[in-house]
Amino acid sequence: MTTFERLFVPAALASAVSDASWLAAMLRAEQALGRASGVELDEAAFDPALYDIEQLTEEGRAEGNPVPALVRALRERAGPEAHRGATSQDILDTAAMLVARDAVVLVRQELDGAAAESARLAAAHRSTPAAARTLLQQAVPTTFGYRAALWLSGLLDARDRLAALRFPAQLGGAAGTLAAFGSEGLAIAARFAAELGLDEPIAPWHTNRAPVADLGAALRAVASACGKIGLDVVLLSQPEVGEVSEGAGGGSSTMPHKRNPARAVLARSCARLAHANASVLAAGEYEEERAAGAWQAEWPALSGALAYAGGAAEAARESLAGLEIDAERMRANMSDDLWTEARTFGIEGEYLGAAGELVDRILARYEGSRA
Amino acid sequence: MTTFERLFVPAALASAVSDASWLAAMLRAEQALGRASGVELDEAAFDPALYDIEQLTEEGRAEGNPVPALVRALRERAGPEAHRGATSQDILDTAAMLVARDAVVLVRQELDGAAAESARLAAAHRSTPAAARTLLQQAVPTTFGYRAALWLSGLLDARDRLAALRFPAQLGGAAGTLAAFGSEGLAIAARFAAELGLDEPIAPWHTNRAPVADLGAALRAVASACGKIGLDVVLLSQPEVGEVSEGAGGGSSTMPHKRNPARAVLARSCARLAHANASVLAAGEYEEERAAGAWQAEWPALSGALAYAGGAAEAARESLAGLEIDAERMRANMSDDLWTEARTFGIEGEYLGAAGELVDRILARYEGSRA
Amino acid sequence: MTTFERLFVPAALASAVSDASWLAAMLRAEQALGRASGVELDEAAFDPALYDIEQLTEEGRAEGNPVPALVRALRERAGPEAHRGATSQDILDTAAMLVARDAVVLVRQELDGAAAESARLAAAHRSTPAAARTLLQQAVPTTFGYRAALWLSGLLDARDRLAALRFPAQLGGAAGTLAAFGSEGLAIAARFAAELGLDEPIAPWHTNRAPVADLGAALRAVASACGKIGLDVVLLSQPEVGEVSEGAGGGSSTMPHKRNPARAVLARSCARLAHANASVLAAGEYEEERAAGAWQAEWPALSGALAYAGGAAEAARESLAGLEIDAERMRANMSDDLWTEARTFGIEGEYLGAAGELVDRILARYEGSRA
Amino acid sequence: MTTFERLFVPAALASAVSDASWLAAMLRAEQALGRASGVELDEAAFDPALYDIEQLTEEGRAEGNPVPALVRALRERAGPEAHRGATSQDILDTAAMLVARDAVVLVRQELDGAAAESARLAAAHRSTPAAARTLLQQAVPTTFGYRAALWLSGLLDARDRLAALRFPAQLGGAAGTLAAFGSEGLAIAARFAAELGLDEPIAPWHTNRAPVADLGAALRAVASACGKIGLDVVLLSQPEVGEVSEGAGGGSSTMPHKRNPARAVLARSCARLAHANASVLAAGEYEEERAAGAWQAEWPALSGALAYAGGAAEAARESLAGLEIDAERMRANMSDDLWTEARTFGIEGEYLGAAGELVDRILARYEGSRA
Repeated sequence: MTTFERLFVPAALASAVSDASWLAAMLRAEQALGRASGVELDEAAFDPALYDIEQLTEEGRAEGNPVPALVRALRERAGPEAHRGATSQDILDTAAMLVARDAVVLVRQELDGAAAESARLAAAHRSTPAAARTLLQQAVPTTFGYRAALWLSGLLDARDRLAALRFPAQLGGAAGTLAAFGSEGLAIAARFAAELGLDEPIAPWHTNRAPVADLGAALRAVASACGKIGLDVVLLSQPEVGEVSEGAGGGSSTMPHKRNPARAVLARSCARLAHANASVLAAGEYEEERAAGAWQAEWPALSGALAYAGGAAEAARESLAGLEIDAERMRANMSDDLWTEARTFGIEGEYLGAAGELVDRILARYEGSRA
Repeated sequence: MTTFERLFVPAALASAVSDASWLAAMLRAEQALGRASGVELDEAAFDPALYDIEQLTEEGRAEGNPVPALVRALRERAGPEAHRGATSQDILDTAAMLVARDAVVLVRQELDGAAAESARLAAAHRSTPAAARTLLQQAVPTTFGYRAALWLSGLLDARDRLAALRFPAQLGGAAGTLAAFGSEGLAIAARFAAELGLDEPIAPWHTNRAPVADLGAALRAVASACGKIGLDVVLLSQPEVGEVSEGAGGGSSTMPHKRNPARAVLARSCARLAHANASVLAAGEYEEERAAGAWQAEWPALSGALAYAGGAAEAARESLAGLEIDAERMRANMSDDLWTEARTFGIEGEYLGAAGELVDRILARYEGSRA
Repeated sequence: MTTFERLFVPAALASAVSDASWLAAMLRAEQALGRASGVELDEAAFDPALYDIEQLTEEGRAEGNPVPALVRALRERAGPEAHRGATSQDILDTAAMLVARDAVVLVRQELDGAAAESARLAAAHRSTPAAARTLLQQAVPTTFGYRAALWLSGLLDARDRLAALRFPAQLGGAAGTLAAFGSEGLAIAARFAAELGLDEPIAPWHTNRAPVADLGAALRAVASACGKIGLDVVLLSQPEVGEVSEGAGGGSSTMPHKRNPARAVLARSCARLAHANASVLAAGEYEEERAAGAWQAEWPALSGALAYAGGAAEAARESLAGLEIDAERMRANMSDDLWTEARTFGIEGEYLGAAGELVDRILARYEGSRA
Repeated sequence: MTTFERLFVPAALASAVSDASWLAAMLRAEQALGRASGVELDEAAFDPALYDIEQLTEEGRAEGNPVPALVRALRERAGPEAHRGATSQDILDTAAMLVARDAVVLVRQELDGAAAESARLAAAHRSTPAAARTLLQQAVPTTFGYRAALWLSGLLDARDRLAALRFPAQLGGAAGTLAAFGSEGLAIAARFAAELGLDEPIAPWHTNRAPVADLGAALRAVASACGKIGLDVVLLSQPEVGEVSEGAGGGSSTMPHKRNPARAVLARSCARLAHANASVLAAGEYEEERAAGAWQAEWPALSGALAYAGGAAEAARESLAGLEIDAERMRANMSDDLWTEARTFGIEGEYLGAAGELVDRILARYEGSRA
């Protein structure tokens, strides 16, 4: 029911957070559990193509999540020992981390692309004078390169937050005690995480949702950094300003002469949707050993936050990649006072306050982050 | 990418807010426009089966919305006069109202179902004594029927808000002036609304989003009323309380003895998701004659708010429909003090404070609302 | 701890939602309860000056709300029968409605002021041509008067929502049954409401928070309508656009030449803060007969939503009141195409599409609303 | 206008985020600026007692922030060179970091207190068997100590996020270029940060609000961890469960026999209010070189998020500090099946699954965090 999904979300990312991906991730979790606990299971049974996620979801209404139905179907194929020792939340939380880890890779690629474009613009326009605007009033001179460098700075902050994310496996059994594994619980939990290449947490996190809340915060950072770029591009694209335009800017259904900053607009709308979805991820209303509502709401919200954050990054990247820069217009827009000031502060000697040095600093940070 | 959609959302409602429904609604809007403005168009061209919404959406990235691509495809079939005088927002806003009107009917059906169940419980347990709990501490006696009547009261409030909704057509042309229709603009706008059975607004609402914000507020009311029921059912289903249980309560993947209040849990998670989506619908950040981000974000958010509000209502209805009431346990749970108090206040004479009269009042309101 | 309160909130409104006002309202509720239930109380005891709300609040931590401490202090002065039959929530909810009713009057005054300014601008500039902007691109011609009329339209929608609000008294006793009043409960509840000039609800609403949620929705509508004006004024005030300016526009600490649209900016920031506070008012997580957290959070959030919504309205009113309109610049900003189009559509004959008629319609609605 | 502030917020924290603290911080920023830029200023002029923040705030409406008025008053006393080279945002952002840094110390103290209480309970009840509850249904056995250890785990996660916060100074001049300082800009910015003991950022962050968004995310983590404790205490305090009670639990205005979990309730309401305030801090809608609304809204929201997060921590600490644990009731509440299971899994040998080892791991993390 996600309206106009491909308008907002990169196809690869939509696929990465699709029900098919969740199903595959749940099966990987079940398979890893079998291996970690030394249970003999038919490996062929873990092929997602054998299962109908829509039917499992429908069936799942009876239990409030799709795992029990999946386990019933799985046991028929893999053997009755499948899922032994685990609870639905183990499988779903672990699947969520697998889905999120894969999706974050895609979000980062888009973010890296947007960063590369920002860095390119920052370097190319390090000495291109432009009016700085505060409260949308012309303030003092700056350079377009410095503005682009500050976009880059925001993107790098967001990337740092993505890079700092941990993706812990979840294995706790019915209530986090690992009791069904006897004395082997912690060892199995460690092997389970290792099988999946996930982090081994100090303890199960079934009602302590820091990994999910951190994902929400990092995706908000992505959304904010990309939404900011979208906002600035929209503003600079105004015909009365005319300092940039999206080369592939969209026409309209009635006004073919228009060159709408369509990608910048999409970045902004994706950012809003990412924030709204992320707001579900940090609530903290988790009752005792398993939440009766707050946990379940995380699944669509996590997919949504990942998808729209990535959509914001894709749209920002595309907007910047095709951006046409009108340096003469930047110059012409500056009031006489500003132009005088810009010359005083040394624009001709490629220096405007510390703008140039700050561009260099931010570019150095960018280069460092790629090393 | 909506994760586990059928777990949360009734199938009919998911369909009502699907891209197929949005496409059909856009085509209905285009068709009504043609009729209203007296343009000759091939009526066969408005069959949704002729169009591929995924492809139109993909194409729509260039312009930031799917309408220009749809109009190009439509004009090939219907004739070059299709869409004349309108702008993308006219079509999308009108489609949004058509989609929402249909979806709200389904939400109301679920809500009515939940109301009927609440009314049944209120009447049947008008004199069933139970402990009232404030801050989850036993407070004074009440009746289970009165608690159910208060659920009903919340549902009726929500239904009133749905019933008060207006679904205005949107037709303003490129910037709301209807200029392309010459002197016929207002007359065409009136016919356009009439063709679709939508309300005729005083003026276009392209940047004055009251119809959308009101939808958001009404759907929040649905979510809150149903989430409240879910919360109470979860609490009353605790084994230490044991006053109700979901007859079809879900098992768990590891603990077959459990009878989880699965529907109540789903009601709560849907309520959360409905609130998050609705939060996108009331923001008010609409630039001049068309918003550059806030408008576009409404489409998925509106679908989501409708779907999850309806999901909350469906889950609440199902939870109540199968609810087993343990009146003896309600009696047994009351502390001696409370039981003494209940007898003092007349429970045996079918009177406990004004609880009985209040049940009657609320039931009368319910009956009145169905007349 | 409200930072820079007077920057954002009208002084009268800040006072209306202050702790002093809450205290006075709680005392009025207690007094009305005494009168309604025929209890002999010393009327002099209800003077707010006799009580220290800070101390009562501090004391209230032990019980989670300030009413028990107030009741102890009140009984010493008014007599032991004070508060008989009521619970803390009766007093606080009723006080909330009294506070809100008074504050809404002030919000409406500011909103009316903003509406009057919008109406003035709509009438004065009914035929002032200007570029309409969609996605911040010049689209087609419009009139400045029509844009102002659409602001007015949003304000009138918001006013309608304020006008539709009900302010019900709350009296239910410990758990909503009115049991402590014996057979007199409903009669006393009716007299209680009448004493205070509040609506008499069909039933207590202690866990059915429609009155509070409706307040939230209406205040969101105010915030959105005023935030929209703020946004447009900021955009139109850009020096590159220059179509309006705040006459009293603020300087800056470093750039005395700037004329910042300070009031428009404040309207936008207030709108954001109003939305954030209102989001607390609609959550629906109210356990059984009294919520253990969601109810208590309403008090600061309600005050905040009222204060910032009113602040948005005040700032929008002030922004519009001092707004200087540069009709020549509006004309000059229009591209040649747009100007040709404007003449074609009849601007010289005071007609541009239906813009003029739509202005008249909206002004007629405005006049009707004042009758 | 913060309603019932002392009910929710520790007095020291309310003071730390008060306007008086913001004023003092703004003056410290101005003073540090003078020192860093080698300007001769009368140091006596920086005494906050010389200024009336309410009047400055009132005056600030003209410019949209209180700094210009403060600078005018400051220059009269300190000399005309005060504030040279800076812009209002430099002073306010730096003040925000100073205020936040001081307030975070207080939040951490409350959080540490809650952590100490959780650790105490985890150690003391490492082998106290209790029913684990999932979806509020009894699931399998656990220990109360393990539940308390998981509370501790959440608190430690939140503390880590607080500890990771950076508090960068902000100095960029009118638009972030430091131009007014000539070639000394970066050196002055470094000295400015050093004077205040704040971090020196790579570049100004006037429209790249990561420091503020990170604060929001960390305070959300505090709110969630403490709200979770509040929720569990409320649930375990139900008379039908009766496993814990707040020793100083509050009475009610009508029911002196009740022992309400008042602190737990306050923790939950504070958590909600903290989340709502924090939602304003991450939005990313910052126009070009200074936001026209989103920035200004941060001031009250930051104060609110700090205050209510700290309030949640205080309330959680107090709730746990006075918590009476009824181990016999925990045992008695366990169903026969659970008790059999608990014995099987070794509760008598102080072992229940991995619960004991997991308690030890979490306590080791706690001890490590204090080293």
